[in-house]
Amino acid sequence: MINKFNKAPLWEVSKDLASVAMGRKNAEIVIKNAKIINVCTREILEGRDVAIIKGRIAKLGKCDDVIGEDTKVIDASNMYLAPAFMDGHIHIESSMLTPKEYAKAVIPHGTSAIFMDPHEVCNVLGLKAVRCMLDDAKGTPLKVMLATPSCVPAIPGFEDTGSYIGPSDVKETMTWDECIGLGEMMNFPGIINSNEETHAIVGETLKAGKIVTGHYSIPETENGLNAYISSGVRCCHESTRAIDALEKMRLGMYAQLREGSAWHDLQEVKKAITDHEVDSRFACLVTDDTHPNTLIEKGHLDYVVKRAIEEGINPIEAIQMVTINVAQLFQLDHDMGSITPSKCADMVLIDDLNACHVVMTFINGELVAENGKNVVPFEEYVYPSWATDSLNLKDLTIDDFALKSDKDQVKAHVIEVIPGKTITLDKIMDFKVVDNKVVLDGNDDVLKAVVFDRHHKNGKYSFGFVKGFGIKGGALAQTVAHDAHNMLIIGSNDEDMLLAYNTLRECKGGSVAIKNGKVIGKVELPLAGLMSLKSLEDTKVMVDSLENAWKEMGSTLPSPFMTMGILSLACIPTLRLTNRGLVDCNKFEFVDLFINK
Amino acid sequence: MINKFNKAPLWEVSKDLASVAMGRKNAEIVIKNAKIINVCTREILEGRDVAIIKGRIAKLGKCDDVIGEDTKVIDASNMYLAPAFMDGHIHIESSMLTPKEYAKAVIPHGTSAIFMDPHEVCNVLGLKAVRCMLDDAKGTPLKVMLATPSCVPAIPGFEDTGSYIGPSDVKETMTWDECIGLGEMMNFPGIINSNEETHAIVGETLKAGKIVTGHYSIPETENGLNAYISSGVRCCHESTRAIDALEKMRLGMYAQLREGSAWHDLQEVKKAITDHEVDSRFACLVTDDTHPNTLIEKGHLDYVVKRAIEEGINPIEAIQMVTINVAQLFQLDHDMGSITPSKCADMVLIDDLNACHVVMTFINGELVAENGKNVVPFEEYVYPSWATDSLNLKDLTIDDFALKSDKDQVKAHVIEVIPGKTITLDKIMDFKVVDNKVVLDGNDDVLKAVVFDRHHKNGKYSFGFVKGFGIKGGALAQTVAHDAHNMLIIGSNDEDMLLAYNTLRECKGGSVAIKNGKVIGKVELPLAGLMSLKSLEDTKVMVDSLENAWKEMGSTLPSPFMTMGILSLACIPTLRLTNRGLVDCNKFEFVDLFINK
Repeated sequence: MINKFNKAPLWEVSKDLASVAMGRKNAEIVIKNAKIINVCTREILEGRDVAIIKGRIAKLGKCDDVIGEDTKVIDASNMYLAPAFMDGHIHIESSMLTPKEYAKAVIPHGTSAIFMDPHEVCNVLGLKAVRCMLDDAKGTPLKVMLATPSCVPAIPGFEDTGSYIGPSDVKETMTWDECIGLGEMMNFPGIINSNEETHAIVGETLKAGKIVTGHYSIPETENGLNAYISSGVRCCHESTRAIDALEKMRLGMYAQLREGSAWHDLQEVKKAITDHEVDSRFACLVTDDTHPNTLIEKGHLDYVVKRAIEEGINPIEAIQMVTINVAQLFQLDHDMGSITPSKCADMVLIDDLNACHVVMTFINGELVAENGKNVVPFEEYVYPSWATDSLNLKDLTIDDFALKSDKDQVKAHVIEVIPGKTITLDKIMDFKVVDNKVVLDGNDDVLKAVVFDRHHKNGKYSFGFVKGFGIKGGALAQTVAHDAHNMLIIGSNDEDMLLAYNTLRECKGGSVAIKNGKVIGKVELPLAGLMSLKSLEDTKVMVDSLENAWKEMGSTLPSPFMTMGILSLACIPTLRLTNRGLVDCNKFEFVDLFINK
Repeated sequence: MINKFNKAPLWEVSKDLASVAMGRKNAEIVIKNAKIINVCTREILEGRDVAIIKGRIAKLGKCDDVIGEDTKVIDASNMYLAPAFMDGHIHIESSMLTPKEYAKAVIPHGTSAIFMDPHEVCNVLGLKAVRCMLDDAKGTPLKVMLATPSCVPAIPGFEDTGSYIGPSDVKETMTWDECIGLGEMMNFPGIINSNEETHAIVGETLKAGKIVTGHYSIPETENGLNAYISSGVRCCHESTRAIDALEKMRLGMYAQLREGSAWHDLQEVKKAITDHEVDSRFACLVTDDTHPNTLIEKGHLDYVVKRAIEEGINPIEAIQMVTINVAQLFQLDHDMGSITPSKCADMVLIDDLNACHVVMTFINGELVAENGKNVVPFEEYVYPSWATDSLNLKDLTIDDFALKSDKDQVKAHVIEVIPGKTITLDKIMDFKVVDNKVVLDGNDDVLKAVVFDRHHKNGKYSFGFVKGFGIKGGALAQTVAHDAHNMLIIGSNDEDMLLAYNTLRECKGGSVAIKNGKVIGKVELPLAGLMSLKSLEDTKVMVDSLENAWKEMGSTLPSPFMTMGILSLACIPTLRLTNRGLVDCNKFEFVDLFINK
């Protein structure tokens, strides 16, 4: 695949590179005295300089003869020079940041490239919003590569979403410069069951000579995994057992070992490497989802490499997993992923190898970050109003939150959440009815839930009950709720729920906590109702306020916001609530809320 | 790069593959009980079957449930199943065989794919003859991939050749289905000196997203090698020292370790792997040139793998060097190079791993060779008459072979060959002149040499002297002489030289030995004057007759035919003779034959 993320394509500058290597022309930058992490041979090379011109590496060797008056010389004594890091699977939306703010956050940690699957924004606003994210990213040094969302909507027929992606859309995006392939193919049932449209979506990617990225989350390595891989899916970040990662590599699939904010798989899946004497070229490290706190407190791939080293992986091998292995996965290794002649000069200087502490980041031969700070300007980008004012909701009154019944009492399904787990339980409970309205009695830790279609004015909405959040009273709402990103509200009383609804409408989306008629925590995410328009630091302040509000309201769940966010995610067992109703996620059937209706 | 060498592209058959993997559909072939050489993880896997449908691997695991009435089941108990072998750099012409006969020769040895650089035939007849070779190859199961000749003519300005390849020709061939990139870029001076046209030839390949293969033969790993690699050249088969191979890998270049008929580099260059603890993913094994005898007596890549194992390389690692590493070099690893789901079912069964003894070869899921024999029909291909009757020579008389001088005696340059070496010496010797003709006195092991332009009727021809062949009397001639493939004749007397000329004219090219007015050895190579139209076995008989003739004539040189064949190759020091004259190959200047003229 031809790499479009460079200062100039190689064929335009190869004569200059040869001239520098031969000593006929001065380099623009020379980095001296570094210990070079050679990811091709898995060695540390000493006594070599690196000469750079026009964004690319011209030479690895003695470079004193190409240092002129205008050459920037960097003395990297006692430091390691490694290829910059590439994250083969991420969703920018999980960070709640715009691509620009995300780039600002990760570049100082040594990241030069990400392969993003913007399926959240695409579910809400379609490809035109994906285009905006790419345009925003262009104003940054970060190489933001697109993996076209493959599963929009995620679970067709069970919820209303803002967009649809079919084979012809995929075909169209394959012509985009930024596009390297297809985003995580979550519809593995469609693949393994030979569904026509699912295979057509993969097929359009293969026809374009691009890469199909995967998502095979079940702990199964026989028929299903073979069928999935046989269809052309090339990588997967969903292994949670070592055997899953190992079998994927054995079957020729890149195992992307994940260490993100919510999912900490590395401790377990690293055993695929450390407990077996295997060639690790098919292993990568990825983050998938990172929240603002993680980016600020831990870092990005630098942190994951450090964790991999802590887990017993050889440091150079760990760095291979975020450089050359990623480049080979995406067949971009001719242009990136190693410190060798001709490649884009994407590099990091590291002062402590085991801690993977990044001191400088270079992208396309330019020093872009130093000592934790970005040192180049980022271009402004203004999102169109349809992207920052996307909620399509009607005016509601308190009466709209009333759950009606003509019985005296009802028996109903309740979604019970389990601390720290993604699955839910289906519990049957009794509810009183007063004045034809089902009421909560304030006991049993049960809240009312409602999901509003936020994509189509006058869209469908549905009620349910949830249990297990530990909320004593009040309401919580969010427009992030996966994967249709409709507006989900849970609460103990209709007044607070209405206020939550109106508060999110007013700020164009995000997440809010209401107690006793007051907003006590709020994360404003006006960009598609998913992302903040503020900086990383300011977004973190908002997120912190919301986390504090959850605690103040009595919840002791770990990451209650995340647990709430997947209440609508109908691809995970057992019972979920979408805007169209309650879904039995084992049978993939709608279920009536009331049993004795 | 999209692979065009398959039974069907993956996107057309992925639903079938998934159906077989899931057990919904029967496989066409199931291979049971093999020990599987897993080149992704460098392991041997046991207890798994391989299921194949539509030319591709659907599953690696238990496959009993997809064995039906029409399924061919192969019991591979006690055998190893490996990916079939791929030779990343070869010239079919060196085998003196057509592509069809070459395919017949190598397939039983486990070769499924070759990346051929047909620069010999291209020098003689241009791209239209390359097209013929590809069309011939289509009638075989062998995947004959084209690396477009990059250096035609090899040494512009110093000889007359039949063709010219420029950037626009390269651009044109990049659209051919069979083309995977550019053939060995021998013009490394052009690359490292930033020559416009040389970089344009490379550039057209890069613009097409294809692979530039290399040839960097000098023992230099600093400025020159960096400049060469920085220009986008991705591999090189010319390392003769371990340090050259190691440095190439360190600089991100694939080191293709060579073990051919004439060049036996492996014993030395393998030390790059065995003496250093390096990741070997950038190492491959290639043959470059193999003669009929080698193919019959030793084999092809099976023999090279065996040699690598003998040289201390781990057997699975050696097999990686002819499978996954080659596939990654050419960025075709999504479709070939490993026994994993989705890939083309190109595989070999091996009964003795250390000997790399191949019992069965499968290409695109079809059993194509068994126990050393091809078991599928090969389609006939008839070359056009311009390809099999290509010599463009005029009638000569004995007088044309007279070297005239008006002096009584002359001092002249003599090319002295050294046994087993490619370089020559420039020796000054005295010659008598009788009747205005320079004569040999039969001593000093000196022969007269003449090179005729065989591409253009009435073309230029030039005289010289050679020393060191040990020929007592007679003449030898060939149309193979590299790289312009003109007609080179050496001899002790004009009568035998004329007979040699006429004999080769009559058989349309090849190689001939004449003694006392009789043809005592002959290899008929009518296809472009380079290749036989006979079988491997019959070609070997001809080659043997010629080798015997050399011995009968008194030569004790190893491979005298090869030594003679490079007398015209003006890119190797010191003195050479082309059809335009004597060339000083250090200064790249023409030299007058006579010093006291």
